[in-house]
Amino acid sequence: MNFKFFIGTKVLFGENCVTENKNEFKKFGKRAFVVTGKNSGKLSGALDDVAGVLENLGIDYYIFDRVENNPSLENVNEAGREARTFKADFIIGIGGGSPLDASKAVSVLAVNHIEPKELYSNVFINKPLPIIAIPTTAGTGSEVTPYSILTRRDLNTKMSFGNEDTFPQIAFEDARYTYDLPSNVTIDTAVDAFCHAMEGYLSRRSTPASDVLAQEAITIFGQCINPLINGQLDPYVREKLMYMAMLGGMVISHTGTTIIHGMGYSLTYFKDLPHGRANGLFIKEYLKFNYREASGKIDRMLELLGIAGIDEFGELLEKMLNYNCTFTEDELKQYASLTMKQKSTTYNIRTAAKQDLFEIMIKSLKAQ
Amino acid sequence: MNFKFFIGTKVLFGENCVTENKNEFKKFGKRAFVVTGKNSGKLSGALDDVAGVLENLGIDYYIFDRVENNPSLENVNEAGREARTFKADFIIGIGGGSPLDASKAVSVLAVNHIEPKELYSNVFINKPLPIIAIPTTAGTGSEVTPYSILTRRDLNTKMSFGNEDTFPQIAFEDARYTYDLPSNVTIDTAVDAFCHAMEGYLSRRSTPASDVLAQEAITIFGQCINPLINGQLDPYVREKLMYMAMLGGMVISHTGTTIIHGMGYSLTYFKDLPHGRANGLFIKEYLKFNYREASGKIDRMLELLGIAGIDEFGELLEKMLNYNCTFTEDELKQYASLTMKQKSTTYNIRTAAKQDLFEIMIKSLKAQ
Repeated sequence: MNFKFFIGTKVLFGENCVTENKNEFKKFGKRAFVVTGKNSGKLSGALDDVAGVLENLGIDYYIFDRVENNPSLENVNEAGREARTFKADFIIGIGGGSPLDASKAVSVLAVNHIEPKELYSNVFINKPLPIIAIPTTAGTGSEVTPYSILTRRDLNTKMSFGNEDTFPQIAFEDARYTYDLPSNVTIDTAVDAFCHAMEGYLSRRSTPASDVLAQEAITIFGQCINPLINGQLDPYVREKLMYMAMLGGMVISHTGTTIIHGMGYSLTYFKDLPHGRANGLFIKEYLKFNYREASGKIDRMLELLGIAGIDEFGELLEKMLNYNCTFTEDELKQYASLTMKQKSTTYNIRTAAKQDLFEIMIKSLKAQ
Repeated sequence: MNFKFFIGTKVLFGENCVTENKNEFKKFGKRAFVVTGKNSGKLSGALDDVAGVLENLGIDYYIFDRVENNPSLENVNEAGREARTFKADFIIGIGGGSPLDASKAVSVLAVNHIEPKELYSNVFINKPLPIIAIPTTAGTGSEVTPYSILTRRDLNTKMSFGNEDTFPQIAFEDARYTYDLPSNVTIDTAVDAFCHAMEGYLSRRSTPASDVLAQEAITIFGQCINPLINGQLDPYVREKLMYMAMLGGMVISHTGTTIIHGMGYSLTYFKDLPHGRANGLFIKEYLKFNYREASGKIDRMLELLGIAGIDEFGELLEKMLNYNCTFTEDELKQYASLTMKQKSTTYNIRTAAKQDLFEIMIKSLKAQ
């Protein structure tokens, strides 16, 4: 056994956790810079809760609500500049993966006058501002990871940075904020969270402790498959999904992701497929590809899911996920090349060559 | 679901973790105050490893090696005074539970001129110094908890303090430091770690996330029962025990302990029974007492342990644990009274009155 275990985030999980733990906001200063998207913070009710608490505590705040979907370096740079001008003491990220990931970049850029590309050095002269993260989807797990995944227009893909100082200090996890999410978004994000647990479990970097968290997340996903397919998204299921997403985030904080995420980035970048859906399309072929190296763990995973085999799992996923874009073989070759450049590809349990990735994609996507 | 999850400690686990991660020491300053006992740091080799690293990095250090077994307020006060005089930047605790717990008190007292009794207020004007914790037993889990359990001579018992700032920043967990521990110490400490997992699992404060960690620890203990009884303490078993102890610490960081620890404190205080052994003597009757309220969880625990029932578990524990002191009924009544004063008693899954505690003790200890 040889491992590191660290989760730099304190999680406060449960209904009304923001208002019930409002004193947590006081520790970080008097000026809060809120990072969110156009809609999610408002529609979920999270922004209202936060604004109420900040006003009650006499904390000044500024709302930056222009985080893009899959935020670019240019987008976070703009937010970072505004946070600097505002002289923020701390950052509050509210939303799905995009605003939460953006908030980490903002926390660095607010106190470091660097080009946004330099984020990828992961070495910052001034310590990033403290971050409070409030997810409004149950998927990304970004609220408990140090990772910030940003779109690199210069490299035609998404790429992540993060170090121990970019863990949010606090995550408030209230499943109420996800109650109104439509079924397709709920599925996409749930599948993303499941991929975090699965890819972490089957990563070369998996550890005894990350496996414990991964197995719990996998078990919970198994309990949610039918509700997700049938749209039975009651508060009880919503809460389970949020718990699973948190666990998935804790897993990848230790293991990172592997080839599924790498391939998925291309589908999101070039075809605008939602991140979780893009990942989910590859699960069946990914498991078949890896079975040779990890049959024991994959069998255990299926057992925890309550599913008889990989093909049955594939059928269930097909019921959840659909897409209506087409791919040429040349496109998939390009995606395979890009995936080979992701460091996470090297952590896949079975070594994957470019041709392997191409074959996984062609089997998964029925290219024309 | 409504829970908090926070482990303020980064764990570096594995052979040679101190030397292989020596840069971690650099972050905390140039003056290290080492808190350890008379023997454990030296005999385990941990102190040598640490001294080597500090010298290599040019960090000045001072070794306080006078931590008592079950350290008193007076003892930590003396160490705190010396740390202040030394102008320590950070504290390194090396040893079993006693030095690690003492190091937390020292980290507070080094920067706060308070009476040691005021530690129990858990509010400190100056933030405690950072702590690096290096266990040389696999039991306490103190390396990943904020708790410091100190002997209160004024109250005839042991009592704990701690807040989020007294989590060690880093725990180095190298099972090599436990290789030479005698069998009885290994058993005592392992049983203590198991009690952390079990009491946390059966606590009113248990959470979904703490249960995941507890179940893993319980599973590992099940794998170690025969090796512990037979003295087959090879490096592989030592590593498992250390991993279990870490998990147990993470569990009680969320749940605290319950009546076993409360009763055990008296046996240690008045009869000098080792802490883990004192706890272990109560396990069988504790489970019988709680079965009415927690049959599902207790059955699950026995299943994870690979044991058919409570009585069989009691027999196995009897093979591990022995003691040769006697108790009068009056003594046990006094212990029951003292246990009722421990806050942890209120977290027991089945409400325990003084008479209940007395009966658990009399059945467990065959009083004369």
